[in-house]
Amino acid sequence: MLDPSVLNELKAIVGPDNVESSAMDRLAYSYDATPNLQAMPDAVVSPRSTEEVSKVLALCNRRRIPVVPRGSGTNLCGGTTPLSGGIVLLFRHMNRILEIDEQNLTATVQAGVITLDLIREVERRGLFYPPDPSSMKISTIGGNLNENSGGLRGLKYGVTRDYVLGLEIVLPSGDIIRTGGKLAKDVAGYDLTRLFVGSEGTLGVITQAILKLIPMPESKKTMLALYGSLEDAAASVSAIIAARIIPATLEFLDRPTLEVVEQFAQIGLPTDAQAVLLIEQDGPPEVVDRDLARMAEICRGHRALSVRVARDENEADGLRAARRSALSALARLAPTTILEDATVPRSQIAPMVRAIREIADKYGVRICTFGHAGDGNLHPTCVTDARDPDELHRVEQAFEEIFERAIELGGTITGEHGVGVVKAPYLEMKLGAAGIEAMKAVKQAFDPNGIMNPGKVFAKSSRKRVVVES
Amino acid sequence: MLDPSVLNELKAIVGPDNVESSAMDRLAYSYDATPNLQAMPDAVVSPRSTEEVSKVLALCNRRRIPVVPRGSGTNLCGGTTPLSGGIVLLFRHMNRILEIDEQNLTATVQAGVITLDLIREVERRGLFYPPDPSSMKISTIGGNLNENSGGLRGLKYGVTRDYVLGLEIVLPSGDIIRTGGKLAKDVAGYDLTRLFVGSEGTLGVITQAILKLIPMPESKKTMLALYGSLEDAAASVSAIIAARIIPATLEFLDRPTLEVVEQFAQIGLPTDAQAVLLIEQDGPPEVVDRDLARMAEICRGHRALSVRVARDENEADGLRAARRSALSALARLAPTTILEDATVPRSQIAPMVRAIREIADKYGVRICTFGHAGDGNLHPTCVTDARDPDELHRVEQAFEEIFERAIELGGTITGEHGVGVVKAPYLEMKLGAAGIEAMKAVKQAFDPNGIMNPGKVFAKSSRKRVVVES
Repeated sequence: MLDPSVLNELKAIVGPDNVESSAMDRLAYSYDATPNLQAMPDAVVSPRSTEEVSKVLALCNRRRIPVVPRGSGTNLCGGTTPLSGGIVLLFRHMNRILEIDEQNLTATVQAGVITLDLIREVERRGLFYPPDPSSMKISTIGGNLNENSGGLRGLKYGVTRDYVLGLEIVLPSGDIIRTGGKLAKDVAGYDLTRLFVGSEGTLGVITQAILKLIPMPESKKTMLALYGSLEDAAASVSAIIAARIIPATLEFLDRPTLEVVEQFAQIGLPTDAQAVLLIEQDGPPEVVDRDLARMAEICRGHRALSVRVARDENEADGLRAARRSALSALARLAPTTILEDATVPRSQIAPMVRAIREIADKYGVRICTFGHAGDGNLHPTCVTDARDPDELHRVEQAFEEIFERAIELGGTITGEHGVGVVKAPYLEMKLGAAGIEAMKAVKQAFDPNGIMNPGKVFAKSSRKRVVVES
Repeated sequence: MLDPSVLNELKAIVGPDNVESSAMDRLAYSYDATPNLQAMPDAVVSPRSTEEVSKVLALCNRRRIPVVPRGSGTNLCGGTTPLSGGIVLLFRHMNRILEIDEQNLTATVQAGVITLDLIREVERRGLFYPPDPSSMKISTIGGNLNENSGGLRGLKYGVTRDYVLGLEIVLPSGDIIRTGGKLAKDVAGYDLTRLFVGSEGTLGVITQAILKLIPMPESKKTMLALYGSLEDAAASVSAIIAARIIPATLEFLDRPTLEVVEQFAQIGLPTDAQAVLLIEQDGPPEVVDRDLARMAEICRGHRALSVRVARDENEADGLRAARRSALSALARLAPTTILEDATVPRSQIAPMVRAIREIADKYGVRICTFGHAGDGNLHPTCVTDARDPDELHRVEQAFEEIFERAIELGGTITGEHGVGVVKAPYLEMKLGAAGIEAMKAVKQAFDPNGIMNPGKVFAKSSRKRVVVES
């Protein structure tokens, strides 16, 4: 519980309406999109400006109160669960697009802007902000920055990190720093911009960002390739890249995912295929047509059962929406849905998908796999029931083995969802003890009192994938 | 001077032939490409493996001996001048391309690989490594990584940072860490990869890197636009970007630079124009032709005196080589050439170029300006004589005012050359006191004993641009 004097100080800083501490308010922010993980904050604070964030942080630092910055809480790693209580910091008042600069092709935004709002505003001007996490309808740019979110266009266009030119950051001390600028090149000192992107709110609070925009591609086409075997689909992915074609999107869905998505979206997806690739290319029309023709040929050469180009943007939208709905669709199957994002070099997709199947069989758990095949970023998703401790134990074992296999294949434990609390026990697998120590030194440098989002990134001791707290 | 026991230990680690400590050897590594800056190292050490680097660092850390990692010493910020003595670490034995992976489109290289060697090897396979610093014929990838080098293709393709997927790093403790991988996406912990890129050898030693490759563009064309006024050239740059065209290269040369380059390269460049834009586009032939036609139209609409497309790759090569030779050409004019890289948002190029002219006039110094106009990354270059203390003082004042103006225009003190020692006094202008403190905390976290490239990035107190040490 917060000391009443702290609550009063917080109210003095952000205004009494912007500090919530009733049981109901606290409950609403006790969890995020991560299943089976909950912890109560002591208060929910909504600052109205960077200066207010600065004062809140200085106060919390002085009083050693944990601070958990939170966008819309759509993360899947427990990144915004207030494990040690303290305050949840909301950005609902800091949600403005401050500027779209058409000369320098930049957008300056506050952390609370909804991703899709930015994308729409930018596209109205013929410009393009590529990062498109599946949660973009409700996720915030601040959340995307903290998690370094990916999305369906990552293969060709990269991830959130690749579109951040500058940040305004409040450090735990209350100091405000500004990195970068509307600059294509800037090497004035260490790259704090990219150090903060993906730091999961553990180093400070990002309040504002200058984002890079690019010209909107002139045209786009979407294609669906169906396969009788997983291996053929995976081989097609490798062959497309090896043919020196980088499509905008190259998504993979296995049969179980396909069935569930079709039940949910009802858009006439074929449910008899073993695997599907959703392929998009954008750019000048002549290039798009040529690339699509070449990719279709490659898919057929790898025994695709059928290859179909979407007739129009409506049909393409339906296909994309169906893919984006995969998690929601799977979530209807069972009380608990655990989605991971083990990632491998793209040449290793077939072995990884095969390994996921074998591991699921071995532990008798149900795992559907879909994901960004072009990035090697797979989302093995387990539909289970957290109330069944025996099954949950097997799920944990299965995911641990999946992570091990991903690392063996040259991959990583998380491609785009972040470490948070649920993957913290596995981080050392990827980084080694020396890597963890180096990261702890960075954490200590920025947040010596450990107030920023405590319990995230760095594990205590457990190696459990599913942490149950109350 | 190093203790003889240290020299013996070093010889035991890397072999006696790989430790040089004669006066001549030390003199050879007492300076880099930065004018007017020299300091003697105590020894020059050439490890043969990462394990040897680790042992050398552990020894130096224990004995508090400065370590200056050095590629080919082509940097322009004094980044590899051994200001506090100690050892210079060379990578001449660690210069292998370990693998080019055509399935995952990656190259794995040791730090000592020459940039152009990598580019040639990659291009032989129809692949493309875009970062192309002007020094690429002799610069090393390790040097490029430490400085986050840019180049002529930065506008469309980004800088070195954008092509680094993973690093092998030796920390001052001797610990070896490996970040990233052959992965398009990886968010397992803080982004140490990009923290080390551009850290100027002050945090640890990069021994190996996994670099991202992309497909080689199918075709390329080069165009030269001549202008009767600087403003028209700068306005063309803005108009091209505003027309949503991102050319591969968009270089600017002012008249004084043009004259000198033509004298040097003798390729028939027009020396009566006030400014020249060198414009390149690459990609599918139909797109290149269309973009070139549109850009030519934009240039003519902004009063270009003439617009000429290079007839063939030979002529284009000549133009590019001439541009790359600008620094060498200017260096022939006077005993001392001081090249800076103040960078501004690209919409501010015209005001910045005008400010540079006015400042040069005000202080009675000769400054030629050329650079990467599309990036807003200008290289005002002063031809002077370091033996004339009065003139040198005015040069210092002029550059200080240029940096101030760049910051006022939303820019930075260095776009691609790094801070090193010569821009350290100005870093606070860009970052503020809190920004400097944050960076010092990072330095302290990785290198608590301050052995890594001491005296770089962080200023002592002086605000002098030109530091003379003996």
